[in-house]
Amino acid sequence: MAAVAVLISVFVLILGHCAAKYEPNWDSIDSRPLPSWFDQAKFGIFIHWGIFSVPSFGSEWFWNYWHKNMTAYVDFMKKNYPPGFTYQDFGPLFTAEFFDPKEWTDIFSASGAKYIVLTTKHHEGFTLWGSKNSWNWNAVDVGPKRDLVDELSIALRANSDLRLGLYHSLFEWYNPLFLMDQDNLFTTNYFPSRKTLPDLVDLVNKYKPEVLWSDGDGNAPDRYWNSTGFLAWLYNESPVRDTVVTNDRWGYGSICRHGGYYTCSDRYQPGHLLKHKWENCMTIDKLSWGFRRNARLQDYLGITELVSTLVETVSCGGNLLMNIGPTHEGRISPIFEERLRQMGQWLKVNGEGIYNSTPWRAQNDSVTANIWYTWKPQDKALFAFLLQWPDSGAVVLADPVPTEGLTQVALLGYGALKWEPVKPGGLKVHVPPLSLNQMPCLWAWTLKITGAV
Amino acid sequence: MAAVAVLISVFVLILGHCAAKYEPNWDSIDSRPLPSWFDQAKFGIFIHWGIFSVPSFGSEWFWNYWHKNMTAYVDFMKKNYPPGFTYQDFGPLFTAEFFDPKEWTDIFSASGAKYIVLTTKHHEGFTLWGSKNSWNWNAVDVGPKRDLVDELSIALRANSDLRLGLYHSLFEWYNPLFLMDQDNLFTTNYFPSRKTLPDLVDLVNKYKPEVLWSDGDGNAPDRYWNSTGFLAWLYNESPVRDTVVTNDRWGYGSICRHGGYYTCSDRYQPGHLLKHKWENCMTIDKLSWGFRRNARLQDYLGITELVSTLVETVSCGGNLLMNIGPTHEGRISPIFEERLRQMGQWLKVNGEGIYNSTPWRAQNDSVTANIWYTWKPQDKALFAFLLQWPDSGAVVLADPVPTEGLTQVALLGYGALKWEPVKPGGLKVHVPPLSLNQMPCLWAWTLKITGAV
Amino acid sequence: MAAVAVLISVFVLILGHCAAKYEPNWDSIDSRPLPSWFDQAKFGIFIHWGIFSVPSFGSEWFWNYWHKNMTAYVDFMKKNYPPGFTYQDFGPLFTAEFFDPKEWTDIFSASGAKYIVLTTKHHEGFTLWGSKNSWNWNAVDVGPKRDLVDELSIALRANSDLRLGLYHSLFEWYNPLFLMDQDNLFTTNYFPSRKTLPDLVDLVNKYKPEVLWSDGDGNAPDRYWNSTGFLAWLYNESPVRDTVVTNDRWGYGSICRHGGYYTCSDRYQPGHLLKHKWENCMTIDKLSWGFRRNARLQDYLGITELVSTLVETVSCGGNLLMNIGPTHEGRISPIFEERLRQMGQWLKVNGEGIYNSTPWRAQNDSVTANIWYTWKPQDKALFAFLLQWPDSGAVVLADPVPTEGLTQVALLGYGALKWEPVKPGGLKVHVPPLSLNQMPCLWAWTLKITGAV
Amino acid sequence: MAAVAVLISVFVLILGHCAAKYEPNWDSIDSRPLPSWFDQAKFGIFIHWGIFSVPSFGSEWFWNYWHKNMTAYVDFMKKNYPPGFTYQDFGPLFTAEFFDPKEWTDIFSASGAKYIVLTTKHHEGFTLWGSKNSWNWNAVDVGPKRDLVDELSIALRANSDLRLGLYHSLFEWYNPLFLMDQDNLFTTNYFPSRKTLPDLVDLVNKYKPEVLWSDGDGNAPDRYWNSTGFLAWLYNESPVRDTVVTNDRWGYGSICRHGGYYTCSDRYQPGHLLKHKWENCMTIDKLSWGFRRNARLQDYLGITELVSTLVETVSCGGNLLMNIGPTHEGRISPIFEERLRQMGQWLKVNGEGIYNSTPWRAQNDSVTANIWYTWKPQDKALFAFLLQWPDSGAVVLADPVPTEGLTQVALLGYGALKWEPVKPGGLKVHVPPLSLNQMPCLWAWTLKITGAV
Repeated sequence: MAAVAVLISVFVLILGHCAAKYEPNWDSIDSRPLPSWFDQAKFGIFIHWGIFSVPSFGSEWFWNYWHKNMTAYVDFMKKNYPPGFTYQDFGPLFTAEFFDPKEWTDIFSASGAKYIVLTTKHHEGFTLWGSKNSWNWNAVDVGPKRDLVDELSIALRANSDLRLGLYHSLFEWYNPLFLMDQDNLFTTNYFPSRKTLPDLVDLVNKYKPEVLWSDGDGNAPDRYWNSTGFLAWLYNESPVRDTVVTNDRWGYGSICRHGGYYTCSDRYQPGHLLKHKWENCMTIDKLSWGFRRNARLQDYLGITELVSTLVETVSCGGNLLMNIGPTHEGRISPIFEERLRQMGQWLKVNGEGIYNSTPWRAQNDSVTANIWYTWKPQDKALFAFLLQWPDSGAVVLADPVPTEGLTQVALLGYGALKWEPVKPGGLKVHVPPLSLNQMPCLWAWTLKITGAV
Repeated sequence: MAAVAVLISVFVLILGHCAAKYEPNWDSIDSRPLPSWFDQAKFGIFIHWGIFSVPSFGSEWFWNYWHKNMTAYVDFMKKNYPPGFTYQDFGPLFTAEFFDPKEWTDIFSASGAKYIVLTTKHHEGFTLWGSKNSWNWNAVDVGPKRDLVDELSIALRANSDLRLGLYHSLFEWYNPLFLMDQDNLFTTNYFPSRKTLPDLVDLVNKYKPEVLWSDGDGNAPDRYWNSTGFLAWLYNESPVRDTVVTNDRWGYGSICRHGGYYTCSDRYQPGHLLKHKWENCMTIDKLSWGFRRNARLQDYLGITELVSTLVETVSCGGNLLMNIGPTHEGRISPIFEERLRQMGQWLKVNGEGIYNSTPWRAQNDSVTANIWYTWKPQDKALFAFLLQWPDSGAVVLADPVPTEGLTQVALLGYGALKWEPVKPGGLKVHVPPLSLNQMPCLWAWTLKITGAV
Repeated sequence: MAAVAVLISVFVLILGHCAAKYEPNWDSIDSRPLPSWFDQAKFGIFIHWGIFSVPSFGSEWFWNYWHKNMTAYVDFMKKNYPPGFTYQDFGPLFTAEFFDPKEWTDIFSASGAKYIVLTTKHHEGFTLWGSKNSWNWNAVDVGPKRDLVDELSIALRANSDLRLGLYHSLFEWYNPLFLMDQDNLFTTNYFPSRKTLPDLVDLVNKYKPEVLWSDGDGNAPDRYWNSTGFLAWLYNESPVRDTVVTNDRWGYGSICRHGGYYTCSDRYQPGHLLKHKWENCMTIDKLSWGFRRNARLQDYLGITELVSTLVETVSCGGNLLMNIGPTHEGRISPIFEERLRQMGQWLKVNGEGIYNSTPWRAQNDSVTANIWYTWKPQDKALFAFLLQWPDSGAVVLADPVPTEGLTQVALLGYGALKWEPVKPGGLKVHVPPLSLNQMPCLWAWTLKITGAV
Repeated sequence: MAAVAVLISVFVLILGHCAAKYEPNWDSIDSRPLPSWFDQAKFGIFIHWGIFSVPSFGSEWFWNYWHKNMTAYVDFMKKNYPPGFTYQDFGPLFTAEFFDPKEWTDIFSASGAKYIVLTTKHHEGFTLWGSKNSWNWNAVDVGPKRDLVDELSIALRANSDLRLGLYHSLFEWYNPLFLMDQDNLFTTNYFPSRKTLPDLVDLVNKYKPEVLWSDGDGNAPDRYWNSTGFLAWLYNESPVRDTVVTNDRWGYGSICRHGGYYTCSDRYQPGHLLKHKWENCMTIDKLSWGFRRNARLQDYLGITELVSTLVETVSCGGNLLMNIGPTHEGRISPIFEERLRQMGQWLKVNGEGIYNSTPWRAQNDSVTANIWYTWKPQDKALFAFLLQWPDSGAVVLADPVPTEGLTQVALLGYGALKWEPVKPGGLKVHVPPLSLNQMPCLWAWTLKITGAV
């Protein structure tokens, strides 16, 4: 039976079916515990890919900025395209001829990430899968003529243990059905009922994502989107009801308040522990989520900054979702591949303190700068991440309470280190003068402390 | 308020509004008298324009034939386009850069036609106007980036007294919503409710057509299309309720049985009088409705055949809807323009016997071949169209009953002719040996007979 | 050996070879009798095809007019192409996918023409054959990727008895070698020695044309072009030395004075007899030699005017070279095909007075208007072409001197006519009142008079 | 006066002008001392840019490999382009819209290079400047519509002290003039006289390059190319006669034997000292000189390997010419920019031992592996480059002969180091256990030794 029919019947079921675990209201939806795999995963890769990857100029908001007459975009179009060229005309140029999902999966695996999140549809409305509700504005009909979501999900599951996450924008800037509802002050809901909800159900049923990354409420309330109705179906009935996680972008006002984990804002980095599970989504290219053909080296974050961001995020209870923008040809450019592989090298040595960890009572050291902590309950192990190498031969950790004879300290990838208690509290760890070759890793180093509290 | 909302409220009105003239069933719909202008008009121009005008190869059914692997189409694509090129990729190439609706109107006016019928959407689903229900698959978003229906209707009304007719295909070959309903054996109606009906209402409200030329039922019954519901609205409530005419293609089984006038089949030419008003839609290019770049001269009907077709059609009670296919650039090619202007030259002389005429008791002469009759009640005049010039100097009309002293005969564009009664009945008209220069027209000649019955 | 090498050795031969018939100076070149076939042929078809057929807007001078900032061209480019688009960028769009030289030949044969002249290279410099001296700016490397000259010449010779003529522009507007010579006031000759002459020799050796239609001297003298040197080779040594004819456009000042037959100016129609054989090259599209996508019907000459032009031209001793412009797809559009086939219909009846005729002592009748004469010495027959049908039943021919009992008059395609002598001289021919069906042809009629002087 | 005229007059001058320093024969040409700046520069950047940057697939030999039916290329074309698409059709797609020569210059400056070499024309024949002898197959007429050579040379000279080098391929794979000469076994020389030599003179006169990097003899002897004639002009008369350097690729058999400095083979790395100045041209992308869109990170050499290659090359008397391939849009991709900037970081610390150095009597240490030497006569300083950091705290240099009290050793970027003599000769340098932060650089380290021999 067709996806839309499923949806309708499902909502009928919801209404008529008192045994359902979750009800279509925020109190009930918010009461669902977050499936545990997500907090354990810590590190994911965000992938922004779409028609915006064709101009690959400025930003993935290209269409909107151009439409708003921002000078750089208007000039770019004037200079390079004939009069009357529209954003839709970029569609056939989204070729993906070099897209090799197996190769992508290999790179993602090498990065140490545990999940990916792919933009199945950004605000432009173009779907990377063959949506029946987006005829002639999807990757099967136009451009690649391939179901990119399908190909990537198959390759991912066949070649890795990464989990699949799907990004989906609720609204679409220029969809006439949405604009019609908007003109009606969202008292009509042609768009959610004909487009958004059927698409969401289709995505979940077809690709069984374990992250559903919602975005783009278009300033419409969750009531308009019927978000709680959809989430009740997702949590009660969908094929991923047991493992799927969602975020908090489900309608005007829901962000940082309702849904699954919190994202709050792009590049969210509170710097302290939050009570609710959260995620820091950020970009390697400092200026854009989509690929930019004219990005300079200085626009990309270096690996030192990226490792430091991961450490701080995890210490404060967040997950890091690090974004790359593939090219319209389907390539992950070498500079992105380099950053991802570097992250993987670092995690191979230091992942023990990242994956499956929880925040500790202190997030960063109260005395020594640039030190962040995590805790691993199952091992009763504390991890202190040093963002700088201690040239002095020693580093003071003021917050752990050691016990002589019991407490042990090791540098991950190297081995045991000596330590001594210091006043008024904490311990001083002696770090040997390791040469470049002797170092277990670069960019940040991890002390594992057991037998301390 | 939005078009779709109008539609819904209208149907609500229909249900609740007992005073409505027409009810949504065929008995009621079929009982509506055809607005009189249509039968008086006799001659219209059909215009097939769409994405098929880009390949302009083979037929306006290009997409379907290619999809069905017909050799000529598969070879054409293989030879001229890259692998993976889809029909949708023709969209941006539909440029219409030379489309000048004023110039089209001038040509149409010169042809003597009284109405035009433009394909606003053929089975390919691409709309020539900015349909909100066809995002990114319409002429405002893709290709011309112009509302072609709007431009033509404005020019037509500003510069001529031709009436506007709009062709609209109910189904779309590859619209996933239609295919979904088809898979469900038309027990669901996602497609009519989301696409067809909102579009029809939108077309009528925006452009106020006086012919609504429906086509393409996709083998689905009128119940699926809710055709009677729509027609009840069109006839009761729409802005063109008093003057609009429709045809008979409103669902499987309705053709030649229900609706407005009958079209029965393409190029329908019964050769005898029908009780129900009908229309012969046919093409100047014998092989295609859409433009073909590689058409040869021999593929086009000559003006003699076209005049002859008009005469026979009108004599038998039909209207002639003669088709041209503009180019993707928006041109009416000179060979079409020539045929249209030739028709206009002929009608300038002979139109008196065509426009506002009715069939006579005999359609063609029972003795002399190639003579067709029409009758003009207001003038009590009989018209006999001679498809051949009588080299013998006389022609016998066996069917009229003349009265000596009363009956008068004239050659249109020339003047009075002598006649004499013949046995067993009728009259013999003496035709002078006119030289080429003296002839009032070419291709066919009209005798006007008054005072006969 | 390579074509250029041939050229050099040939010129060496010329210098050292006293037996050569023609010497490289105008006196000698001009002394060559024109091969007789050309005067007998009377009617040819000119074909303008090239990169200008891609924009097919305005004129085959598109590049030049655009370059000179003529408004219509600048606007056309601004409206339809991206900034920076150059004329060269039209190259790949010259597709010729529907070019069928056999079909062209059939149409040409049906027209009654006896030769064709194809633009192998217009002033744009793009060669329709695979010139070695025009790398990447010829139809084999760019666009059609076919040797169009070769394909057409083969089809022509295999399927018809038409003779092949090749148009060739000496100069090229923007060839840097030509511009260099121009800057040097034509004291250098890089361009003729590297481009023009090797190409001319190549054309003649490869395709063996029987008309070499030279054009475009670029305001440079024939000395610069080494025209007499080339013509001496062409007339003495080339494979077509016995049958080839050339025209008079061989350098600044040569037109209407030197070379083979005279063309004098485009659309040359002196209206009286010339002593030197000449040709009237003119266009069916009144406004352009190259195809124009936006031409209107009124821009094309009608068949009556074309027949009248042929008659007048031949009477005054000229040949008619009637031009068509194929599309960039390789089609002869139906309006051109119609004109060509109409001309062929007319010539089938009246060709007896056209082909192999010579001018008579009078060109048009000194009394009756719109009558032109030709003479056929082998039959001692005089032909009088009536451009108007004599509705009066008789026509006076004032110039022939008849002899009663000897002189006979016939209407071609019909049969013998009666005549009587008139004062002060000539004869009055009685023309029967033929109806449309009885007429042997339309557009113009031919009286054949034997036994008169 | 035109470039070609200059050339001719120059050769005339050569013949008639006995005072000329260099004569057109190898003995004389080879006797010219290499201008000293080149040996001092040590490090240059090679830039391969052309039409091959459009497919940017496989190699800059794309055209040739495709033409030879290599499977990967044939398949790539079949999959992505329509039948009949030719290499020339890539021309208009070479857009260079993001080419910013100032930005390129900044990156080149930051790399520490002292010269660049740009492909002004590769074997494909497409010229990056507006060559008059390559009409419609150059970057001003087709593609960028900019004189790329001019723009880059101006930016380079305005914003840096790098010297300009121009790469130029003598032959062109598919130029019909070359193929004609080849068919004639190079007994004719249409191609050199009309194309190669005029272009070379034009390049030198217009852009005044200080490196002229010749390539691609097409298996033709230098006699065919008139290489010695051209070089005599270049060395005697050209505007860069005092500073220009050339390489050894001037005709079949000349490589590694005649001309200026030797290149011998691509990626030439003899591993020992050569008597003749040489250059190692190599690529960062191990597999291609032109950009490849589908290159993986692993295809790029890392900075450690690049530094090591520079050190070894310079120690053995060579210059390093390190290649990057810009994109068809005109971008230096970030991975190339990263490698270039890393090289610059390293040279900022270690350049003292590279620039203006000469080979020493030993190239690498006879006892300790991975140590290479250079010598700076003006400072009487020896430089030992350590490709590995000595974790042991000391490194033995067996070849220098130290003198206690006189000999001093320093680590560049750090300061003086202690040393002691060792048996049977040489010295042992004590290297402190520097932490990552304390290290003056990464990838290789330089010991400067004064007072030793």
